[in-house]
Parts: sequence; C-alpha cells; structure tokens
Amino acid sequence: MRFTTSIPVRYAETDKMGIVYHANYLLYCEDARTNLLEQLGFPYCEYMEDKGYLSPVVNINVTYGTPFRYGDTVVMRTRIITNRLTKTVYAYEFFDSTQDMDVDKPHATATSTHCVIEADSFKPINIKKVFPELYEKYNEILEPEE
Amino acid sequence: MRFTTSIPVRYAETDKMGIVYHANYLLYCEDARTNLLEQLGFPYCEYMEDKGYLSPVVNINVTYGTPFRYGDTVVMRTRIITNRLTKTVYAYEFFDSTQDMDVDKPHATATSTHCVIEADSFKPINIKKVFPELYEKYNEILEPEE
Amino acid sequence: MRFTTSIPVRYAETDKMGIVYHANYLLYCEDARTNLLEQLGFPYCEYMEDKGYLSPVVNINVTYGTPFRYGDTVVMRTRIITNRLTKTVYAYEFFDSTQDMDVDKPHATATSTHCVIEADSFKPINIKKVFPELYEKYNEILEPEE
Amino acid sequence: MRFTTSIPVRYAETDKMGIVYHANYLLYCEDARTNLLEQLGFPYCEYMEDKGYLSPVVNINVTYGTPFRYGDTVVMRTRIITNRLTKTVYAYEFFDSTQDMDVDKPHATATSTHCVIEADSFKPINIKKVFPELYEKYNEILEPEE
Repeated sequence: MRFTTSIPVRYAETDKMGIVYHANYLLYCEDARTNLLEQLGFPYCEYMEDKGYLSPVVNINVTYGTPFRYGDTVVMRTRIITNRLTKTVYAYEFFDSTQDMDVDKPHATATSTHCVIEADSFKPINIKKVFPELYEKYNEILEPEE
Repeated sequence: MRFTTSIPVRYAETDKMGIVYHANYLLYCEDARTNLLEQLGFPYCEYMEDKGYLSPVVNINVTYGTPFRYGDTVVMRTRIITNRLTKTVYAYEFFDSTQDMDVDKPHATATSTHCVIEADSFKPINIKKVFPELYEKYNEILEPEE
Repeated sequence: MRFTTSIPVRYAETDKMGIVYHANYLLYCEDARTNLLEQLGFPYCEYMEDKGYLSPVVNINVTYGTPFRYGDTVVMRTRIITNRLTKTVYAYEFFDSTQDMDVDKPHATATSTHCVIEADSFKPINIKKVFPELYEKYNEILEPEE
Repeated sequence: MRFTTSIPVRYAETDKMGIVYHANYLLYCEDARTNLLEQLGFPYCEYMEDKGYLSPVVNINVTYGTPFRYGDTVVMRTRIITNRLTKTVYAYEFFDSTQDMDVDKPHATATSTHCVIEADSFKPINIKKVFPELYEKYNEILEPEE
C-alpha cells in the first residue's frame, strides 16, 4: 500500500544551481513518513515521542535524477518495504504534481531505515513488543521490493 | 571591544538568486556569539547549558545590503551593546574577507537580544545573580551604540 | 486585509531546546508571503521571477515569545503595512492552531521589508511602474500599523 | 590518500532529540569535499562553477551510528574511492575530535556520487576531457574500497 504526500518547494530549499539542494530531499522524506504514520492512525509525536521513544534514521540512500525547482510541488509516494522487529525500511519515489505516478519516471528515489530506541537510554527496542499495533499495521501495508 | 569570526559560505546556504539565503545570516550570528563567548572564556555549552540554563533569542533584527555569494568568507564583527540583568544585546556587522572593517561598509548589520532561562521551567533568570562572572565580563567589553 | 497560512512544524526545524529554532521563523514568513501573493493572484514565481525580477528581503525583525514545538501547526496571520514605490513591508503574527487569533496573544510577531530588483543587474526598480497591478492590489489590502 | 576536515556542530543543526539532525550530515560531506578540492588545488567555485560547470550529487548513502551533539567537533576523513569518466565517488568517515581515527569506530560513514554537467544545459560531460588535470589528480589520490 502506498501513500502520497504533497510538498511545495520552499525558496529556502533551492541553491545557486537554481534547483532544490540535495540534502533537503531528506526533509521531504520526513514529511512523507510523518504523513504515512498519521494516515495509519499512529501520529509520531503523540504515539511515540510522548511515550518516551524515538525513531532515529540509521541509513539513508537517495538517488537523484531530474531536479526540482522553485514553483514545483513535490509529490512523494511512500511505502514500507521491510518490517522487522528492530528495523523498518521506507521507500520513497519523488514525483512532481504534473506527473502520472503510474507511468512517469520519478525525479528521485530513496530508502530510509529506522529503529526505535528509548529516549532516555538511546537503547534499541523490539517494535513488535513495545508497539504491537504499529507492527501489525506495518505488516498489513507492507509492500516489499521485487 | 569587538570580536571577529570568519565563516566560509556553504553551498547549502545559497538560494536560486545565487546569493546567501537571508535566514542563514542568523546562523552566522550564532557562530559569532559562540566564538565571542569562547574568547571570553565562557563556552556556551559547558558554561550555560550543561548547568541547566538556556539563552534563547527574544528579538532579531537584520538589515541586508550587498549579498554574499558562494566562495565568500563572511567575517563577522561582534560586540555587546546592552548588558542588563535580564537582557543581553549583541550587535553584528557582516563583512567579507576582502574588506577593510575600519573603512568599508558592511554587507549587513544585525542585533540579537537574549535572555537566560532555566532549561526545566523556561523561566527567565537574573544573569548577574546566576552568572556574576559572565555579567562582569560583559560589562568590561560593553560597547554601547552611540 | 489579513491572510492566514497554516504550516506544520518539521522535525528538522526543532533544536536541542526542544523548540523551533529561531531562524526557521523566517521560513514561515516566506510561506506566508508566498501564500498571500498566490491569494492575490500574483504568484511570486510566475509573476515576478519568470519575468526577470527578484524581491529580496532588505530587513527582517522578529520578536519571539512562547516557543513552538514539534506537533504544533503554526498559523501565520499576515498583512501589508507599507506600500511604497520601492519598498513593501509585511507584518506577521505567529499563532498555533489551538489559538483564537482575535483574542489570544501570538507566539511571535515579525516584519519583513522587501524591494524589487532586476535579476540581471540587482538594481532596484519602481514597483508601481513595473508591476502596476500588484502595486494597486497592495494598496487595496493595505492595513498600516496604528 | 585521505583528507581530514574539522567542523564544529552548529546549534541550528541539532534537533529535539538533542543530537545532530540526520540531514545535516550531508552538509558536513559538502564541507569535506570543498576542503578536499581546495587541498588538491582545484577550488570548486573558481575551478568548476566559474567556468560554467556544476557537479551535482547523483547518489548519497549515509549510515548513522553514535550521534553527534552540540559541543562536538566533527572530524571528517574523506577519500575518493571511484574515478570514472562520468562519475566520481567520495567516501566519508565521521569522527569526533576526541577519537583516534586509526583505532576508533566512526560515528557514521557515507558515500556520495557526483557527475559533472554543463551549467547551461545540465548535460553530463566527460571529466577526463574537460578537466584532465583534476581527473589525473583524482587518480593519484584514489583509494578504492577493499
């Protein structure tokens, strides 16, 4: 199952090449994750951080193609491709709002890998144990890479 | 007494105009403050935050002139212009490394106003009472606006 | 006439105090301006930059009160307070989405001052001359400070 | 051959977890590249952009371990691991200034892949053809992954 999130490009996100600076793609990934969790009914802030847990990024991998420019609206298509006890992997495709997501080639693709840790100790926890409903939900929507 | 801090412009800090994005001037101000406090012997992190205090910005005022570009090194000249019990005001001049600070017009000028608060309660404290040596030091280097 | 713009706080916009980093308020101001111009029917990108003009910030002044946190939605209320031939001033109030904008005190207030310049030469132009319809529109919605 | 670059953490680069926000690692990579090119005698700005070329990022891959905090100085150790006609790959190790780079485990590791394009057309060029001295230099310092 895939989720879409629309994000207008900010002026601040461009650089002197006239395109979106590459590091800012990670902000769009975050917006996409936040939205996916909200759609699932597990808003990150209330569901995880307010209970004393954090979900840091342990790996990020982005492949850049046609750049985005100011005036573009980035449309992220996001899915969960891995759901393990201590590791969740998101995959992202970056389109613009004029594209057909089923036909056109995305501007960029990315994956991000996350664990869940205790906010106090920074120790990783077993997601299935601490957040069983979230783990189940991830399984329902899971769409592994072919 | 004035303190200088050199900061090379990052590519990420430019925008599609080809110049440094205006919000990033506030990062340069922060670098200048950090350096000033270090020069004074009161490194912000160890001296203030590690003791349970924070020093948030309560006002910022920046006037922009000739822009900075990638390849420039920003040279900040910084002084304290106000030292009150609950309020410290920094003034900044933004030069580039090819300029003569005693003759040339700065690219930009700014002031930032700060208080000190308890990290737990966010309640403002009396700087003279909690950090008497810092307050004294500020008085020594104070250089009010004419 | 006042315009409102809603902006969810990004995780990336927080700092180690647990609040929105002060420089990021300038990004919210930009979002508010972009939205105001779109509401007026003069989208900045198409209407100004694509025609060879830029509208840089010449002054920014922000006063910070109660901080914003992750999970908050910032609601900007924006108006034009000055409309001169070579200078436009926006005023901003920063609320959160739980506040009543007619009764409650904003988290922060700001003004930003802009000119319009030629993209090639960076020379300031007369707004009324080059963009007469925009200048007129500004006059219609003008709401000077008392 | 490996190059080191020291970068103090900015307050702005932290997030509400109290650690450096993951996207900002890409800024440190950029600082490391800029420094490496300067050390080689090919400053990016003068040598490449001023001549009408750009070197965008086509892939970024970061693996995060022990986080960085405010007060840390990030020490990047950087090398070129691939030097092809149309593709250069940098590898980075992120240490802090208290670590022994020959013994200790880095906080993070990353690679970034770059091509060179014409600024006007965004068309990729053959590095060896357009920048033969740089290509040669890369070969001299090349240190492929085992």
